[in-house]
Amino acid sequence: MKFQKPPGTQDVLPGQSETWQFVERTARDLCRRFHYREIRTPMFETTDLFKRGVGETTDIVEKEMYTFEDRGGRSMTLRPEGTAGVVRAYVENKLYGEPDIAKLYYIGPMYRYERAQAGRYRQFHQFGVEAIGSSDPALDAEVIALGYSFYKDVGLSGVTVEINSVGTPEVRAAFRSRLLDFLTPMKDSLCKDCQSRMERNPLRVLDCKIDQAKFEGAPSILDSLDEECEAHFVRVRESLDAMNIPYAINPRLVRGLDYYTHTAFEYKAQGIGSIDTVGGGGRYNGLVADVGGEDRPGVGLGIGLERTMLLLESQNVQPVSGSPVDVFFIAMGERAEREATGIVHRLREAGIAVERDYQGRKPKALFKAADRAGAKVTLILGDDELDRGEIAVKDMAAQEQKQVPLGELAAAIQAIVSN
Amino acid sequence: MKFQKPPGTQDVLPGQSETWQFVERTARDLCRRFHYREIRTPMFETTDLFKRGVGETTDIVEKEMYTFEDRGGRSMTLRPEGTAGVVRAYVENKLYGEPDIAKLYYIGPMYRYERAQAGRYRQFHQFGVEAIGSSDPALDAEVIALGYSFYKDVGLSGVTVEINSVGTPEVRAAFRSRLLDFLTPMKDSLCKDCQSRMERNPLRVLDCKIDQAKFEGAPSILDSLDEECEAHFVRVRESLDAMNIPYAINPRLVRGLDYYTHTAFEYKAQGIGSIDTVGGGGRYNGLVADVGGEDRPGVGLGIGLERTMLLLESQNVQPVSGSPVDVFFIAMGERAEREATGIVHRLREAGIAVERDYQGRKPKALFKAADRAGAKVTLILGDDELDRGEIAVKDMAAQEQKQVPLGELAAAIQAIVSN
Repeated sequence: MKFQKPPGTQDVLPGQSETWQFVERTARDLCRRFHYREIRTPMFETTDLFKRGVGETTDIVEKEMYTFEDRGGRSMTLRPEGTAGVVRAYVENKLYGEPDIAKLYYIGPMYRYERAQAGRYRQFHQFGVEAIGSSDPALDAEVIALGYSFYKDVGLSGVTVEINSVGTPEVRAAFRSRLLDFLTPMKDSLCKDCQSRMERNPLRVLDCKIDQAKFEGAPSILDSLDEECEAHFVRVRESLDAMNIPYAINPRLVRGLDYYTHTAFEYKAQGIGSIDTVGGGGRYNGLVADVGGEDRPGVGLGIGLERTMLLLESQNVQPVSGSPVDVFFIAMGERAEREATGIVHRLREAGIAVERDYQGRKPKALFKAADRAGAKVTLILGDDELDRGEIAVKDMAAQEQKQVPLGELAAAIQAIVSN
Repeated sequence: MKFQKPPGTQDVLPGQSETWQFVERTARDLCRRFHYREIRTPMFETTDLFKRGVGETTDIVEKEMYTFEDRGGRSMTLRPEGTAGVVRAYVENKLYGEPDIAKLYYIGPMYRYERAQAGRYRQFHQFGVEAIGSSDPALDAEVIALGYSFYKDVGLSGVTVEINSVGTPEVRAAFRSRLLDFLTPMKDSLCKDCQSRMERNPLRVLDCKIDQAKFEGAPSILDSLDEECEAHFVRVRESLDAMNIPYAINPRLVRGLDYYTHTAFEYKAQGIGSIDTVGGGGRYNGLVADVGGEDRPGVGLGIGLERTMLLLESQNVQPVSGSPVDVFFIAMGERAEREATGIVHRLREAGIAVERDYQGRKPKALFKAADRAGAKVTLILGDDELDRGEIAVKDMAAQEQKQVPLGELAAAIQAIVSN
């Protein structure tokens, strides 16, 4: 019986996992500088949390959730996005009781049962931040800047920022009816998705790629903003300007989640098939109260890590170089073989990365293995060396070999490796 | 509506997450030195993989799996342990085609629907390694040594190693019938668990804490080993001796998984309620073929990270110290407020961890916030400073304050922070 990974999931193998580690290290260092601290929430939550937190009428909740009943008969769902769980944890752990605002980040898998295509997986990974407790527009800008810095720091170029204001729920309700006045006469000519979106979330219709051309004269939400929304949006833009973050205003930008208020933003890039959005986020002033907490404003972002990996590949960025192995140990003969275990272990305890043979291979094959592993030093131990209490140390770059007393081995290796 | 985390799961909050990061960094550095490379497999797999890979009659498969049907009607299960998925990936990605053996590690969540108690969670985390492709007993010892080093490296003391040989399936079958001869006369006097285990896996009966006293004259599997098993076990012990790893031989040690052959081992420690096993593993020579691959021997270990965290707590080890923030920025007045965004961002771009206010707090509250954040430097910007193109830089440890030109700010901060 052969087994396969579930459809829409990936195995990350050695050679790829190092790039994932690099991307995660980059995200963590960025969060250190911006003073966001890590939160880890469970991989699944009660299904109702996502219905409430993500929105009953979203594609995610309607069609894409991995929902199951646990052995206690509770309906659970693998998290389809990161914000709802973080906000639940913020409320349950009473983080609103702290004197400072909560600036949190997460890195981890999410689950959506979507049609598989390039850059779209059913198990995918997001890096996200959530800043809860302030409605200062400079905080929206900080979050946007953090995401922008992320793409720069991993080594990508050409990632652009688009921003919009989706206003307050009241502003949006007024705009929705203006928009429906515009759309209704052309309803029959729109694609099926648009027709269905008109019922559920007409703002998303303007985002449609198929019908784009028909929306030229459509009303813009930016013309519907009230004074407060307008002032907030101006301040976000001023803050971005102060940080030299370039951005475009896209009045049709609407995120796929229901909870955004005021600022919505996306990061766009070319290079992943038909997908151009690689991350995004926005402000969510009603969400904390929606999931049962005290009323606190928040703003956050989510960045797709599979998409980041695909962009790195398409831009031919190889952020991880160098070999993982410092030393390859080659024993010649049975006596040396028996000494190998102790010597290798002591070197590892001294902080040196060492590999040895466990397949009974001959010296010639072992020299090849040492090359393949990218070892900077090869150690050769035979009967002669053993009798003299020495070991042969070969500097692979310089192609020089010398005999070193066993007691001085770690230092001799460090001298070559740190070169 | 209030939402709670699912029973048996945890939120890891700032203040705790830094310790998790430290433990994971330690594991990664250990794997670098031992030349194990990371593999990431999906959080769920087809249910049949675990039935086949973990064993149909194990407690895990019979009672504890999170199994669900996906939207395509396939039966999937959240991984209850790490080995089956890694071996599936090894086979599916044809890693056996490589000239070297596969030395892999993973860190991540696992899922078992168990009764909640101290140190036992339904979502728990394991660090594990798998070395596939060699039956060299020195490799068993390397894996045992890696786990032993892990506990030392995170700062724990008093973790001990117990080892045993559970032989080949043939050896075990012969021993099973000797053992049943011993157990059958006393069956009615044994606890319910033991009676049920007698049917399914009599070797695990000897592990029972309740009936321990009754097993004094029980046969030992070590007396049933054939020559090959004996030779393998001797070599494992010799290799551990060569590395100065202390261990005890426990002939009753049997792991809860069916797939082990030859070496089985556990790490034990006091301090987590009634639980004393904090990690373990063993050799699994039949498993790769069992899940449909070419017949390759393997050996691995799994270490419970929640248990590691509880041990750190019970031994009062605080591996993470120091504050996450280098600098706290305090703006006095509206003009300074507007300058804050740009200055803070440029410092962050220069690699410095900076926090500022987003709650409109007064200077007095901000100085308290700077203290709470553990900032090493407080920056104070007011109208006077702005007019002169300067900023006040306060060294919090030395309690010294001086005026610094804005252009020299990053260097002035670095001088204090790196002190």
